[in-house]
Amino acid sequence: MTLKVYLSGEIHTDWREVITSGAAGLDVAFDAPVTDHAASDDCGVAILGAEDDKFWHDRKGALMNAIRTRKGIEQADVVVVRFGDKYKQWNAAFDAGFAAALGKSLIVLQPPEHDHALKEVDAAALAVARTPEEVVQILTYVQKGMLPG
Amino acid sequence: MTLKVYLSGEIHTDWREVITSGAAGLDVAFDAPVTDHAASDDCGVAILGAEDDKFWHDRKGALMNAIRTRKGIEQADVVVVRFGDKYKQWNAAFDAGFAAALGKSLIVLQPPEHDHALKEVDAAALAVARTPEEVVQILTYVQKGMLPG
Amino acid sequence: MTLKVYLSGEIHTDWREVITSGAAGLDVAFDAPVTDHAASDDCGVAILGAEDDKFWHDRKGALMNAIRTRKGIEQADVVVVRFGDKYKQWNAAFDAGFAAALGKSLIVLQPPEHDHALKEVDAAALAVARTPEEVVQILTYVQKGMLPG
Amino acid sequence: MTLKVYLSGEIHTDWREVITSGAAGLDVAFDAPVTDHAASDDCGVAILGAEDDKFWHDRKGALMNAIRTRKGIEQADVVVVRFGDKYKQWNAAFDAGFAAALGKSLIVLQPPEHDHALKEVDAAALAVARTPEEVVQILTYVQKGMLPG
Amino acid sequence: MTLKVYLSGEIHTDWREVITSGAAGLDVAFDAPVTDHAASDDCGVAILGAEDDKFWHDRKGALMNAIRTRKGIEQADVVVVRFGDKYKQWNAAFDAGFAAALGKSLIVLQPPEHDHALKEVDAAALAVARTPEEVVQILTYVQKGMLPG
Amino acid sequence: MTLKVYLSGEIHTDWREVITSGAAGLDVAFDAPVTDHAASDDCGVAILGAEDDKFWHDRKGALMNAIRTRKGIEQADVVVVRFGDKYKQWNAAFDAGFAAALGKSLIVLQPPEHDHALKEVDAAALAVARTPEEVVQILTYVQKGMLPG
Amino acid sequence: MTLKVYLSGEIHTDWREVITSGAAGLDVAFDAPVTDHAASDDCGVAILGAEDDKFWHDRKGALMNAIRTRKGIEQADVVVVRFGDKYKQWNAAFDAGFAAALGKSLIVLQPPEHDHALKEVDAAALAVARTPEEVVQILTYVQKGMLPG
Amino acid sequence: MTLKVYLSGEIHTDWREVITSGAAGLDVAFDAPVTDHAASDDCGVAILGAEDDKFWHDRKGALMNAIRTRKGIEQADVVVVRFGDKYKQWNAAFDAGFAAALGKSLIVLQPPEHDHALKEVDAAALAVARTPEEVVQILTYVQKGMLPG
Repeated sequence: MTLKVYLSGEIHTDWREVITSGAAGLDVAFDAPVTDHAASDDCGVAILGAEDDKFWHDRKGALMNAIRTRKGIEQADVVVVRFGDKYKQWNAAFDAGFAAALGKSLIVLQPPEHDHALKEVDAAALAVARTPEEVVQILTYVQKGMLPG
Repeated sequence: MTLKVYLSGEIHTDWREVITSGAAGLDVAFDAPVTDHAASDDCGVAILGAEDDKFWHDRKGALMNAIRTRKGIEQADVVVVRFGDKYKQWNAAFDAGFAAALGKSLIVLQPPEHDHALKEVDAAALAVARTPEEVVQILTYVQKGMLPG
Repeated sequence: MTLKVYLSGEIHTDWREVITSGAAGLDVAFDAPVTDHAASDDCGVAILGAEDDKFWHDRKGALMNAIRTRKGIEQADVVVVRFGDKYKQWNAAFDAGFAAALGKSLIVLQPPEHDHALKEVDAAALAVARTPEEVVQILTYVQKGMLPG
Repeated sequence: MTLKVYLSGEIHTDWREVITSGAAGLDVAFDAPVTDHAASDDCGVAILGAEDDKFWHDRKGALMNAIRTRKGIEQADVVVVRFGDKYKQWNAAFDAGFAAALGKSLIVLQPPEHDHALKEVDAAALAVARTPEEVVQILTYVQKGMLPG
Repeated sequence: MTLKVYLSGEIHTDWREVITSGAAGLDVAFDAPVTDHAASDDCGVAILGAEDDKFWHDRKGALMNAIRTRKGIEQADVVVVRFGDKYKQWNAAFDAGFAAALGKSLIVLQPPEHDHALKEVDAAALAVARTPEEVVQILTYVQKGMLPG
Repeated sequence: MTLKVYLSGEIHTDWREVITSGAAGLDVAFDAPVTDHAASDDCGVAILGAEDDKFWHDRKGALMNAIRTRKGIEQADVVVVRFGDKYKQWNAAFDAGFAAALGKSLIVLQPPEHDHALKEVDAAALAVARTPEEVVQILTYVQKGMLPG
Repeated sequence: MTLKVYLSGEIHTDWREVITSGAAGLDVAFDAPVTDHAASDDCGVAILGAEDDKFWHDRKGALMNAIRTRKGIEQADVVVVRFGDKYKQWNAAFDAGFAAALGKSLIVLQPPEHDHALKEVDAAALAVARTPEEVVQILTYVQKGMLPG
Repeated sequence: MTLKVYLSGEIHTDWREVITSGAAGLDVAFDAPVTDHAASDDCGVAILGAEDDKFWHDRKGALMNAIRTRKGIEQADVVVVRFGDKYKQWNAAFDAGFAAALGKSLIVLQPPEHDHALKEVDAAALAVARTPEEVVQILTYVQKGMLPG
């Protein structure tokens, strides 16, 4: 049975590629937000017209991106949320909360230095991974029952 | 009809008191997480026994706090989420996502400097307020139809 | 058992008063949107600050009003939607669709000249009434089993 | 992943064709109500027998059309609702409310002169577009992450 | 904790009175359809105007009664459905199916001669009782843990 | 888009064949209960062992049949329920109520002499057809927008 | 806000009394299954008539008890499930699974020797307590934010 | 229509193979937990790092296995839960409760000596089978309407 996995969060490193290429032999369908930062920020005004006020510029873009992210999360079996080293990343935590409320299987991917700040998010997760490779190993185990090594 | 309001997020300033005292004349029932920071961090081990590993110390506490926060959010009509100046505040964004997925009316209370970082959270909200007084005015309008001034 | 009734739609005649006073002897709890037209239009900017663009002026107000209308509809047993002689009244039809999707008992209150234009809305309703007095008679029958006359 | 899009509302211009042909290169499955106005009005009596009373003539047709429209909306990821220049279009607003209550991603397609009258509907939408071409651009961005130009 | 019980089905004998008086010492809130047969048949046309066609006469009444019966079933903890000796009683079986789909605790009250014809309905029930007194004993046991005798 | 149709109710005439062959040119997937009367009555004891008591003999069979009928109804877009001339047919009305509570599009297929007895069931339906051919015409219209003749 | 707590599982020690008396100062409403073992086993046949076959004797009782236990779990905020030293206690684990699927806050009360056998159940819980006194402390903390000592 | 069947419970005998090979001619898609006992116990620490405390060792594994088991149960039409001769098997009963709360068709596979201990679980099931062959016969009947022999 195909496992549907949504890859949410940090968009500045290649963690999604590590996971998708690592899981190439599995029956997994991946989905993700638009990861082109500029396009993601400006999609609303680029299509629907400019705004003088940055607040509404952002609102138009965030609403448009929500068409994709809501579908991605709602149709996923597993939602992986990655927290990186930089930025506020409130949208990642928001996605985690959204996924948790829908009863999705949540995997948090984060460095140990964020453990305390992420304790509520982690507590809603079925796994807290440190590297994308561990996420690949989890998906492999979940689908094939095979452990690494 | 009683309006049930859950006050989520930042616990280091008196914003909850400003709202609850400002709304004293309304038929509003407020709920909130435990706001004693030390108790909130240590509740798990204080009741269920110490842990050597800080990760599980935190997990035990976060799970126990979830008994209260899940009930608070699930039974609320309105969830107000406050983002302050400090800390990661991922639990606040998590609560916002959780509330949004349940279809709760979300009010975000935040300073303008976080506008861009919070754009996805704000886009799921029915109001973005800057001060607790504005939240009181919103609740007053929602319940009584009266505007300030 | 208390019947919770939400009175949606047209705000320029006294139909809500006719219903609430006519149902004074029943165990019915009425709810309704803010019916002060000016307050309803301007609530967003009055509380959260002015907007240069009328589109966002309207958006802020509509979102704020949604806090009340969503709660009103979601907690109702019966949603009465009134269509009058004037204006587009798309918000009334929107409320009717929202209520129908939630499985609420829908009563449409409308003059016969709108029958064809409202046929899809009427088809989702459990009653199509012509006068507020008929709505009172329906509520009386539903609660007490008594017919008029 | 296939995006399922339901095209609701106005049936007198070719806006659906503009969108479906514009989106020919995307993985989108479109659905829509029956757009043959006469068939849509008369389907109930044509199949199930004539009615003397126009009210029930309309009811039979509206109920039969609901078999298709409910399925279309319930299975859609995105519901586009088009408001044109003419007619009451309450069924369009009803569909928008129905879609909103089900948590569908709503795109409203409307001319600016209806902005104020549609403010509640727009406030429930993730995008307000002015032309069918903009809707194509939104769908392209949502699926491929590519902006126009 | 108050037990909410809806008494559906046959309206020509006094079984509801036997149950409600027998359960007088319990904390049970009973609800039921309108049991005045003539009022139930004619409520639609009595309030909303006569119909030439008996089919629509019946439709108007059945829709109006549904306001009460849907609320009664949806808010009940326990739905008791009584099948008597006469009539088709398809509305009773319809209510049983409606209650079962909502996950309500279903009690069927029926004479043994209907056992085979009711086997699908009985299979969805938590109890099949033969007399109203048995229903009282079930409610007493469910609330107080006390058995008869 | 494939229309999923469940054909519930009377099993002694060939109405299912008339519909499935009449709809041969449509993209419709039909499902139905087991229509072999003897097998349907005895499946429980045939597989799981005989019962001395006819009541439990019937119970075992009804529960086993529910595995198929629940799935059939829950996955259907449209549920057609046929009431014939004979038998109590309470399971048909039960299925109709079950389908209605799940928000399925309900089509009732019945002779006019049952109109009054079926008025509550009909009031929950989107169409009341008299012949299987009418059901074929409805499905054709719903999927292709084409009317007969 | 009243906390609704359902006390499921082992019925041979006084753990429920320890919790309810320990929580006397809290705003908690407790519910529980019938804890009279004999009544619980025989309720079905005592009210609805004897069965020759022990399997159906048990079935009748288990179904009748389900009226109470389903309501208790469905209306609870918190479900405490106690596993003791003896018996199979599959009904306790069943209740835990039922509560988990409904998103209830689950507290497992069990001795450490069952840790490995209960690991799947514990993993769905927000707290694993060893004594009834710990459960009282959890409820006190959840409602009042006060830790012991 | 493909029947999706999840095979939960006992992992020390070949009952799953008997069912899957016996159902080879049916359109059934089977899913199951990881049945490699050692892998199932150690998956958490094998991928995410060792734990000093056996309690958290077990927790990490149980949470990871839940990614697979939750998906398996949530997407199933039928959940078969097998109770064997040994061990506590609380996870099997937990799965049964979880499946029941989601409205899945539950089949319990167990030896008669557990009848009394499993009476609450059995009462939530649509069939209680004694052998894997009986489960094959049930699936054959449900899908093809054919009885054995």
